[in-house]
Amino acid sequence: MAKPFLLGVLGGMGPLATLDFQHKLLAATPADNDQQQLPSVVWNVPQIADRQKALAGSGPSPLPQLLHGIEKLNQAGASHIVIPCNTAHHWYDELSAASAAPLLHIVEATIESLLNLPHKPQRVGLIATQGTLDAGWYQRGLSGQHIDVVLPTADELAQWFVPGCYAVKRGALREGGELLTRQARALLERGAEQLLLACTEVPVALEAVAAPFLSMTHDPAQLLAQRCAQIWLEYRHSYFAHTQSNNLNK
Amino acid sequence: MAKPFLLGVLGGMGPLATLDFQHKLLAATPADNDQQQLPSVVWNVPQIADRQKALAGSGPSPLPQLLHGIEKLNQAGASHIVIPCNTAHHWYDELSAASAAPLLHIVEATIESLLNLPHKPQRVGLIATQGTLDAGWYQRGLSGQHIDVVLPTADELAQWFVPGCYAVKRGALREGGELLTRQARALLERGAEQLLLACTEVPVALEAVAAPFLSMTHDPAQLLAQRCAQIWLEYRHSYFAHTQSNNLNK
Repeated sequence: MAKPFLLGVLGGMGPLATLDFQHKLLAATPADNDQQQLPSVVWNVPQIADRQKALAGSGPSPLPQLLHGIEKLNQAGASHIVIPCNTAHHWYDELSAASAAPLLHIVEATIESLLNLPHKPQRVGLIATQGTLDAGWYQRGLSGQHIDVVLPTADELAQWFVPGCYAVKRGALREGGELLTRQARALLERGAEQLLLACTEVPVALEAVAAPFLSMTHDPAQLLAQRCAQIWLEYRHSYFAHTQSNNLNK
Repeated sequence: MAKPFLLGVLGGMGPLATLDFQHKLLAATPADNDQQQLPSVVWNVPQIADRQKALAGSGPSPLPQLLHGIEKLNQAGASHIVIPCNTAHHWYDELSAASAAPLLHIVEATIESLLNLPHKPQRVGLIATQGTLDAGWYQRGLSGQHIDVVLPTADELAQWFVPGCYAVKRGALREGGELLTRQARALLERGAEQLLLACTEVPVALEAVAAPFLSMTHDPAQLLAQRCAQIWLEYRHSYFAHTQSNNLNK
């Protein structure tokens, strides 16, 4: 048998997005009882230096606190680790190098899932932090599939996206949802057929205001949760098969 | 300075109740940004022997798995530990003895909070598992305050409460909510003025069906979350005061 499956969640960025991710894990896992649900250990410690400010050069790096979380999750016995925060993937290589458990990458899980869409869109709008946009992960993944990307302008980010995210972080979901709706509409008006909500605060806020275009969106946190559930189901299946064959041999 | 505040949550009983408790922690904590939110590490591993069956003598004890969770939370650096599951408090003494971090007791937090009610009810209905009812914790706490307790009958538990809880555990919130609404109405009809929802699956399900009597209920998980937030706010206050005075001394 492989190491027992235990999903480590490096959360806290922000705490509400971490809870939202846990709901997505539950929703992605078919289960008849508690015992069939995906086991996880969640490091939900939001005392982490601000990622957006660090990447803008106006604040300290969150890396030491992220490394501390990775260490704790490994000590707890995590077999796989995920980070339900797109921007924090800026430090993916350093965190991955420091972790015995493999880190599933949110962008890889997303692009892999888009590859399997029955009707591939021509133009996708990308809602993300400046740090995620600068990194270019999603743009490269999308253009690799010959999909055009519609990006927010600097003005839109400053006026709608950034204050929208910080509103979510202080629990003002409706205010955040309204600001982020404006950001989303701007991308749709510039020709995006579908939207990639590549910041984990965004889907929470858009759901809170029941944004009418939600069916046109893809949520990387959800796609990552589905990937985790898939790994758990494979493990659960082989575990139960093993337990059953053991019982039969008795 | 005291050991850094870090709330350990021994969850997984069930996984949705564990998420609900985390929402209650967020709601109980006034915060302007991520960094002010309560830090926690959540052991959400639902592969724990069924507590109701163990107490009914029809299944193995969950104690080894609970002790494992307590050990992991202590290793992760928890300064305080809570268990958002009433029934699991049957093993409170053994878990407490094995934990360096103090375990906050859900019944103590609840009774303490009821003591501070402006208008003390005369008769309170108690919705809980057979294990929690048999333990008598809430009954003793309430009669200590000269409050009469209205209990579910064995028939009601078998017909409504037990299948309602297991419905929540497999994600059928509406079905669970309807069954648990019947249990709640039976206690109200027998003269309960208020209800104590002393099983963490119950408030989740009653909220899912927007039960009209929710304002007449007390939720021990919420009262426990408020107690945790209170400890965090005291720590946060002294921590920021300390940091500020350090900065002033520079």
